Amino acid sequence: MTTTTQTDVLIIGAGPVGLFAVFELGLFDMKCHLVDILDRPGGQCAELYPEKPIYDIPALPSVTAQGLVDRLMEQIAPFKPTFSFNRMVSSLEKLEDGGFRATTDENEVIEAKVVVIAAGGGSFQPKRPPIPGIEAFEGTSVFYSVRRMEEFRGHDLVIVGGGDSALDWTLNLQPVAKSVTLVHRRPEFRAAPDSVNKMYALQEMRELEFQVGQVTGLAGSGGQLTSATVKGPDGDVEVACTRMLPFFGLTMKLGPIADWGLNLHENLIPVDTEKFETSVPGIFAIGDINWYPGKLKLILSGFHEAALMAQAAKRIVSPGERIVFQYTTSSTSLQKKLGVA
Amino acid sequence: MTTTTQTDVLIIGAGPVGLFAVFELGLFDMKCHLVDILDRPGGQCAELYPEKPIYDIPALPSVTAQGLVDRLMEQIAPFKPTFSFNRMVSSLEKLEDGGFRATTDENEVIEAKVVVIAAGGGSFQPKRPPIPGIEAFEGTSVFYSVRRMEEFRGHDLVIVGGGDSALDWTLNLQPVAKSVTLVHRRPEFRAAPDSVNKMYALQEMRELEFQVGQVTGLAGSGGQLTSATVKGPDGDVEVACTRMLPFFGLTMKLGPIADWGLNLHENLIPVDTEKFETSVPGIFAIGDINWYPGKLKLILSGFHEAALMAQAAKRIVSPGERIVFQYTTSSTSLQKKLGVA
Repeated sequence: MTTTTQTDVLIIGAGPVGLFAVFELGLFDMKCHLVDILDRPGGQCAELYPEKPIYDIPALPSVTAQGLVDRLMEQIAPFKPTFSFNRMVSSLEKLEDGGFRATTDENEVIEAKVVVIAAGGGSFQPKRPPIPGIEAFEGTSVFYSVRRMEEFRGHDLVIVGGGDSALDWTLNLQPVAKSVTLVHRRPEFRAAPDSVNKMYALQEMRELEFQVGQVTGLAGSGGQLTSATVKGPDGDVEVACTRMLPFFGLTMKLGPIADWGLNLHENLIPVDTEKFETSVPGIFAIGDINWYPGKLKLILSGFHEAALMAQAAKRIVSPGERIVFQYTTSSTSLQKKLGVA
Repeated sequence: MTTTTQTDVLIIGAGPVGLFAVFELGLFDMKCHLVDILDRPGGQCAELYPEKPIYDIPALPSVTAQGLVDRLMEQIAPFKPTFSFNRMVSSLEKLEDGGFRATTDENEVIEAKVVVIAAGGGSFQPKRPPIPGIEAFEGTSVFYSVRRMEEFRGHDLVIVGGGDSALDWTLNLQPVAKSVTLVHRRPEFRAAPDSVNKMYALQEMRELEFQVGQVTGLAGSGGQLTSATVKGPDGDVEVACTRMLPFFGLTMKLGPIADWGLNLHENLIPVDTEKFETSVPGIFAIGDINWYPGKLKLILSGFHEAALMAQAAKRIVSPGERIVFQYTTSSTSLQKKLGVA
């Protein structure tokens, strides 16, 4: 079923810069909807190094990436942004009324007057494991993330990997699948020890299988897997397999943004430094994904870019309306929007 | 006596943006000296609204102006900046070696390879009270701030005003001066009640005089005051006066910056958006005092400008050295400079 979301501004990317854009746009009464490939706000920051301190955010001598995201979520709460997580905007078209229609990879439609690309280094995409012929099964039998657990019910499931995702889904899908085989090249895991212990306990009870080795081949046809070959220390083993979840980490790709007709410069989006608008009027790019002379990929630069972008976005969302520049410190009107006056 | 300070970067203005510039320059090993007309760091923020919350600093949902300054001082502490407070850079000349020599209104000399103007709305300057002929006595008998209490020893001092500065100096200079007369147009004061009570107690004890009224005339010659006329509810009173301290508040003026040969645009300094450099190579302008298309007078924009400026400043301070852009989150070298690794 297709759902359509109407909003003033569609923000692609819910990292720190996309989140702060909600604040700057909100001060001018623009409603925002954010789409992110990850399952929560924070982007690269919160995904790659949630507990690592950042030292160069002004007036925050030390803050963890997750702490930064939490603070931003608190700051934008008064503007009640809406989010589509686990989604990628796969296509973007300009409408005749000047607005935009975005469609996600789950066929969700978002219509907005302005689009802000705050996608950082692009979208995180799962790394494809080096298994010959795997492409033919992707999206039908091979999946890189779990969107609905029901998709795995009653299946012979092979999970490949040794990190938290692999172990967590092994434990979570074991009650749902017909059978679960975890394949990892060593008996040691990067995942949390508690999950590893639970997995070994289920193996003892014959509730799942753990195979040391690597998947070297797949059998099946028409996109439907039937079995996988696991090369282990004692030779090849055939494992029943109608669904596979390989967890080989994430890689950063520009993704579908490359197909939207924007001018690009070495996979970055050139913008002006007055409005941070792309080559397509009404589409802005802020944060690490944009480029202009002097550009530094600093979170704080994305914050500044969000502020200037918001002025230009307002002119599009509310044409003809006079834009009054006010300070949060002195403007009762802004303080009311923030819920503090 | 003239003191000469040698530094890599002279920062004019110790408001939030000037302070954060110390951080960005420090990451590249540049030493900074800051000059500010006020007697402490924080600039307009801390001077005009220290207790008022600011809501638009990213990831700080609410912070008082003083709190912001305190956090920035903590963040730049590892770089050990030096400060000249209560000083104004009155002249700035380019040296033959490409550096700069700045001279303050107290004849302090600062030599630097790079100058960063972060002077906000300009310098705070005392408002001149509407007393005919007062100009003739300024700097010899009439002062707008107290730099050395000894200048008032043994003098018949008239202090004019009803705020904290007036009351504080009335109490502090009473033991030093031969006589102190406080003049205010009402018996009510804006100053802290405790100071007002102390002043009235000293008046009771005849240790000082308080006159309700306004100073309407001055007598004296050759810059040397002899008496002031105070128009009160019961008519004119002549008061012995060889030194006068009027406290009529502060006003913002561009000040001597206008005379340094920089291109100006409506009292702002045009800069590029790559390096935030002025029309004079080696002199940068960041924060509220600069101008470029799209400019917003936001503290956060000044922070961004400081970061980009620092790259360009490094090329001047360490010509030929390769500039490696690193993140504080991942670079052990930066973390060592910050004292956290």
